[in-house]
Amino acid sequence: MFSANEQQEFLKKAQALLPEQQRWTVNADARVTPVEDKNIWQDYRMEKSDLAEFLDNTVFASGDSFMVSLPETTVGQLAFTLTSPCGYADSPSRLRITLGELPQEVIFADKPYHGTLNGSWLQTEIINLDDLPCDVVLPRRYSCKYIRFDMIGVPQTVRFSNIRIIATGSEKELLPPPQELSPELQCIDNVSVRTLRNCMHTCFEDGPKRDRRLRIGDLRLQAMVNKVTYRRFDIIARCLYLIAGTLKKDGEVCSCVMERPYPRCGCVAHDYSMIFAATLEEHCRWSGDLTIGRELFDLAVYQMKLQERFFANDLWVAVSDPYSDWFFVDHDLDLDRQASLQGIAIFAYRALEKLAVMLGRSDDAAQMRYKALKLSAVAREKLYDPKAGVVYSGPERQLSFASQIWMVLAGVLSPAEGLKALQTVEKSPKALRPSSPYMFHYLLEAWQKCGDEAHMLELLEDYYGGMVKNGADTFWEVYRPDEPMFSPYHDVRMNSACHAWSGTASYFLRKGYL
Amino acid sequence: MFSANEQQEFLKKAQALLPEQQRWTVNADARVTPVEDKNIWQDYRMEKSDLAEFLDNTVFASGDSFMVSLPETTVGQLAFTLTSPCGYADSPSRLRITLGELPQEVIFADKPYHGTLNGSWLQTEIINLDDLPCDVVLPRRYSCKYIRFDMIGVPQTVRFSNIRIIATGSEKELLPPPQELSPELQCIDNVSVRTLRNCMHTCFEDGPKRDRRLRIGDLRLQAMVNKVTYRRFDIIARCLYLIAGTLKKDGEVCSCVMERPYPRCGCVAHDYSMIFAATLEEHCRWSGDLTIGRELFDLAVYQMKLQERFFANDLWVAVSDPYSDWFFVDHDLDLDRQASLQGIAIFAYRALEKLAVMLGRSDDAAQMRYKALKLSAVAREKLYDPKAGVVYSGPERQLSFASQIWMVLAGVLSPAEGLKALQTVEKSPKALRPSSPYMFHYLLEAWQKCGDEAHMLELLEDYYGGMVKNGADTFWEVYRPDEPMFSPYHDVRMNSACHAWSGTASYFLRKGYL
Repeated sequence: MFSANEQQEFLKKAQALLPEQQRWTVNADARVTPVEDKNIWQDYRMEKSDLAEFLDNTVFASGDSFMVSLPETTVGQLAFTLTSPCGYADSPSRLRITLGELPQEVIFADKPYHGTLNGSWLQTEIINLDDLPCDVVLPRRYSCKYIRFDMIGVPQTVRFSNIRIIATGSEKELLPPPQELSPELQCIDNVSVRTLRNCMHTCFEDGPKRDRRLRIGDLRLQAMVNKVTYRRFDIIARCLYLIAGTLKKDGEVCSCVMERPYPRCGCVAHDYSMIFAATLEEHCRWSGDLTIGRELFDLAVYQMKLQERFFANDLWVAVSDPYSDWFFVDHDLDLDRQASLQGIAIFAYRALEKLAVMLGRSDDAAQMRYKALKLSAVAREKLYDPKAGVVYSGPERQLSFASQIWMVLAGVLSPAEGLKALQTVEKSPKALRPSSPYMFHYLLEAWQKCGDEAHMLELLEDYYGGMVKNGADTFWEVYRPDEPMFSPYHDVRMNSACHAWSGTASYFLRKGYL
Repeated sequence: MFSANEQQEFLKKAQALLPEQQRWTVNADARVTPVEDKNIWQDYRMEKSDLAEFLDNTVFASGDSFMVSLPETTVGQLAFTLTSPCGYADSPSRLRITLGELPQEVIFADKPYHGTLNGSWLQTEIINLDDLPCDVVLPRRYSCKYIRFDMIGVPQTVRFSNIRIIATGSEKELLPPPQELSPELQCIDNVSVRTLRNCMHTCFEDGPKRDRRLRIGDLRLQAMVNKVTYRRFDIIARCLYLIAGTLKKDGEVCSCVMERPYPRCGCVAHDYSMIFAATLEEHCRWSGDLTIGRELFDLAVYQMKLQERFFANDLWVAVSDPYSDWFFVDHDLDLDRQASLQGIAIFAYRALEKLAVMLGRSDDAAQMRYKALKLSAVAREKLYDPKAGVVYSGPERQLSFASQIWMVLAGVLSPAEGLKALQTVEKSPKALRPSSPYMFHYLLEAWQKCGDEAHMLELLEDYYGGMVKNGADTFWEVYRPDEPMFSPYHDVRMNSACHAWSGTASYFLRKGYL
């Protein structure tokens, strides 16, 4: 595919598009005290009280602790002023500071971590301040709504003031929700917009707390919300160039690009490699920028070529294996991915066809169309059961939402067939349900594509409205309404509470109104 | 005494004398592994092995630890390079870093701290590095010979290289010992000079690990070594101006001045207030700078005026109380300080007399002489027992080295009387011995003043040579040959292993040779 030099050129273009970072201050505005309450999401209510009064009238000695909250989940650097009321301050101040998006992260700061991801993602710092008084600005970036301070060792007593986050991001303002929406939907829109804004930094990140990376799967969803909100096509273009500039040796795009200390490839998920085509096509269509389409069309086509090894007689046959070839699709190890991946491939070929048409490359368009039709025919023949009205996946003929969703989005099923398939799995308790908000987004897309906008909206209001009712002001990476303590990482503190792939409600809510 | 404006002028003079800080690199040069050995000072031997080989061939995962050592105890910032051998590095690296002057500090990094001083003096950091590879320079300054790294949570494995201290101080080079000295004494001189150098920063600090402060008691001793070594009279003058610029409201000098975040008074020890006179007089005599003598003579005299309330009929009667009037003298709560303080006062008046003579202020000289003689006469009458040949202190007529020492240094006892007094307490098991190296210095001064240079040298070789034999390459704040685990703070890790008041051996060793 592209040579190292060509990739360097893409990285230069990405660098030229580096968005200016806004900075603004978000002051902590309440003292909070956790109160156990089994009726509350994740078992704790954060009781608020007057912060200014508390800080004005309290000095803290070694062993003391307190917690504060911000008016909204905020991404940025922590800053505060620490003084010595008696003025003596003859030793350093050692503080532990724990920042959390959700209450559990700060309440259980002392609990040992035994989760599966590296515990260093938990936002905690131990800092030493040599000289008081001082105004401290911590160098790292956090995503948080709650901040806990523990005095490990302070000279005599200390006093806090000006506790604040110096917020940062490509966009500062939250766009107001469309007035035509119901108050409930306005609220969901607001949370969705905040989720997007909090993920917009020097690239579109998957989550500002963890993993802070450009992921193709998240990027496509962010691009959809971006189109109906901030319209920062410059940052989308930067992301596409970053992807094009950090290819694997075999020319495959990285499903996850790390920006720092220099742009580099994280890992590959082959379904994301195929989603790249749709992301590129939509970007060209929405931004009107065909140049980048011309530059990266061949790269997108090449991704499909690379996946050909996973097919036998035009049927997807490869099985996901995190140690060799990984196909994400959803956060569900039990999910048989065959039908979904067949669908995603067709979806990608159709996107490439559209892009080829836009670029005036009619031969390519025909070829992509041919591929899509061929895979589509095999899919109908091998995976679709017209009698049952559903798509099955794998040798065990597994029934899942994912299979129906991707066959709908790929256009393998007609809207009427799709509607029936979705309705069937909805009624089937055995059908594997979407596990992640990422899959849930595609479920909404599928309902919409099948024409049942009302049911789509009902699901949206139930799912995202559920998070809002449970206290979300940004949408969560993980949401299982009946399993508040579920974590794919075996520790709920590791879950990200502001995650790109959960933030697409505004795309559906604003589509009709813009 | 001096008005706020006048004090500001002194602080400006201090600022103008701010010494340029040198920076140089000291590389860690060995991997060390602690081995318990009851024959070794503080129970542990640090076994060395090849560091380059170890770091080249080792990757570290979460939970791993290792320790390194430096060629000498060094003051500065820690720096190192951390890389990700596999290049993935998808999460932050959380490291605990513990820096120690002596092995116990790093070996027992996990042991809870229950000492009396604020535990935040223990040199430990938990740092989070977001992006690998990176070269890290920690912002704070440490004093250390040993560095321990604990991987709390790292992505996959990490590799270390370039572990080093970016050393800092007003002087870089260690002055070579006089060649006339025996190898043992050369070694002691070397350690003494390193102790001084490691305490020379933007002021003469009492200890670079803890408390990092300008203390009058330490300053006088440092000035004595400085005179026979680096001759940085500019920094001594800066220290004197800092003291003159940070007076208590009643005009008393601070026994301890903190430089940061702005020069300010720490606390008062009235014996140190009196020692100020001697420090000033000696500085003028040694540096030839009479201007500062003229500027600060009245301040030094005023210090003596302030102490008058502690006398009744020219006999010191006040008792030390850390919560009101504190007289340090030595690290020994049992010590009756009456005779010592009477002696220190006379010592100070005699210094003021000399300074007045130098400045041509004969009236003042006469007055100071008169004071000294008056207090001296009372001392001989009330505290000295000519028959026993010793000085007693307090209502219980306590016998201590301190009382003899200060009466010798004050000239209350003649050299012959002093010799007898010192010899008597030396033979008396009940006599309270010097507890700190600070008092030990004055013991050496006293022997010298009484003319027994040979015995002084014998004591010096035994005491400082003992530390060297026990592994010291800088002299320790606390040294009780028979109590390796003694700490005035109830935790040996809190002891400073490089302390100004322990560094005067070179003063005695170099006096005759320069």
